Amino acid sequence: MRLRNLKNKEELISGSNYIIPNPKDYKGSWKKLFNNNNPIYIEIGMGKGKFIYNNALENPNINFIGIEKQDNILARAIKWMPKDLPNLKLIRVNALEINEIFDKEIDRIYLNFSDPWPKKRTINRRLTSPIFLDLYSQISDSPNIYLRTDNENLFRYSIESLSSYHYTLYDVTFDLHRDCLNLITTEYEDKFTNNGDKIYALKGRK
Amino acid sequence: MRLRNLKNKEELISGSNYIIPNPKDYKGSWKKLFNNNNPIYIEIGMGKGKFIYNNALENPNINFIGIEKQDNILARAIKWMPKDLPNLKLIRVNALEINEIFDKEIDRIYLNFSDPWPKKRTINRRLTSPIFLDLYSQISDSPNIYLRTDNENLFRYSIESLSSYHYTLYDVTFDLHRDCLNLITTEYEDKFTNNGDKIYALKGRK
Repeated sequence: MRLRNLKNKEELISGSNYIIPNPKDYKGSWKKLFNNNNPIYIEIGMGKGKFIYNNALENPNINFIGIEKQDNILARAIKWMPKDLPNLKLIRVNALEINEIFDKEIDRIYLNFSDPWPKKRTINRRLTSPIFLDLYSQISDSPNIYLRTDNENLFRYSIESLSSYHYTLYDVTFDLHRDCLNLITTEYEDKFTNNGDKIYALKGRK
Repeated sequence: MRLRNLKNKEELISGSNYIIPNPKDYKGSWKKLFNNNNPIYIEIGMGKGKFIYNNALENPNINFIGIEKQDNILARAIKWMPKDLPNLKLIRVNALEINEIFDKEIDRIYLNFSDPWPKKRTINRRLTSPIFLDLYSQISDSPNIYLRTDNENLFRYSIESLSSYHYTLYDVTFDLHRDCLNLITTEYEDKFTNNGDKIYALKGRK
């Protein structure tokens, strides 16, 4: 997602209660940070955060951590988010580092409209490539992935990659908004479905 | 597939060189029957047999066995098939019996446009239900399934069922005839694609 540069992005990030500036310090003790034993769900590439914020709002008994590597996007998320959800934290890291940030303490991984990295030479950057599936096994005892995408090739790739990694796929759909009502959506998804385009989705557990 | 009843179907079937009337006698010795060590591919529900016949014609170094439980359909297949392919045999059995007919000697299983059995109470009759996946493991050391369907629900179900059975899915496509050229097709498929409709396909190996 490309956005106009925010001038005060560093101030927004450093001044936010949502942000955990030193996430590696909490490896293995995120439940302590949240001060409860509730499950922890993460979204990798949370964008402007509508999806994770609304999920946190609707599910106070789940802890949510949004991951976004781009300052500019993270700052925009912080800018609009009200500052009162104790079950939501945001971290600014590259997804390749998640195994340095979490021990086996993550219960669900949301991948919403991830970059499809269409070229063959960048295939390993897809968030369902074996490199990432290996990381997910490091941060969860039984990884549970919730994936949505508008990109057919990423979806097909993800079916193949997850099955080769012995994930059981379920709730597979080629038209999420036909099959499920009352969904919490991302900003990107809203634009997309307003055009009448279809969203692919699946869940996978290992 | 419903077809007008053929009056001479029993004569056609009993008079055909393609038919193996007592297939259970060959359990474990199909390669001996074919008189070579070539791989054996089966098609469950071969219909009028265009797909398996043309495959056998193009691949003389593979042995093919077509399975069809309905006399009337089998007779129609026999009626049009020239009688000179040594690498093709046909058997009249119910798919639920394949473990009584084959030992671990099958290298590939084709499921083309199988009945989708849409109702919940008949889900176990789908050829990718756990009941059948269990049978496939009995007839093959490493089952390899090639599936095509026009039915979205059967396709989604098959992705879920095969992945839960730890099949690795590959060559997943939502529009087979866009992604692959020069395919050998079934009769049903030709009618379907002539309408411009899309075919789902996948391969799975365990």
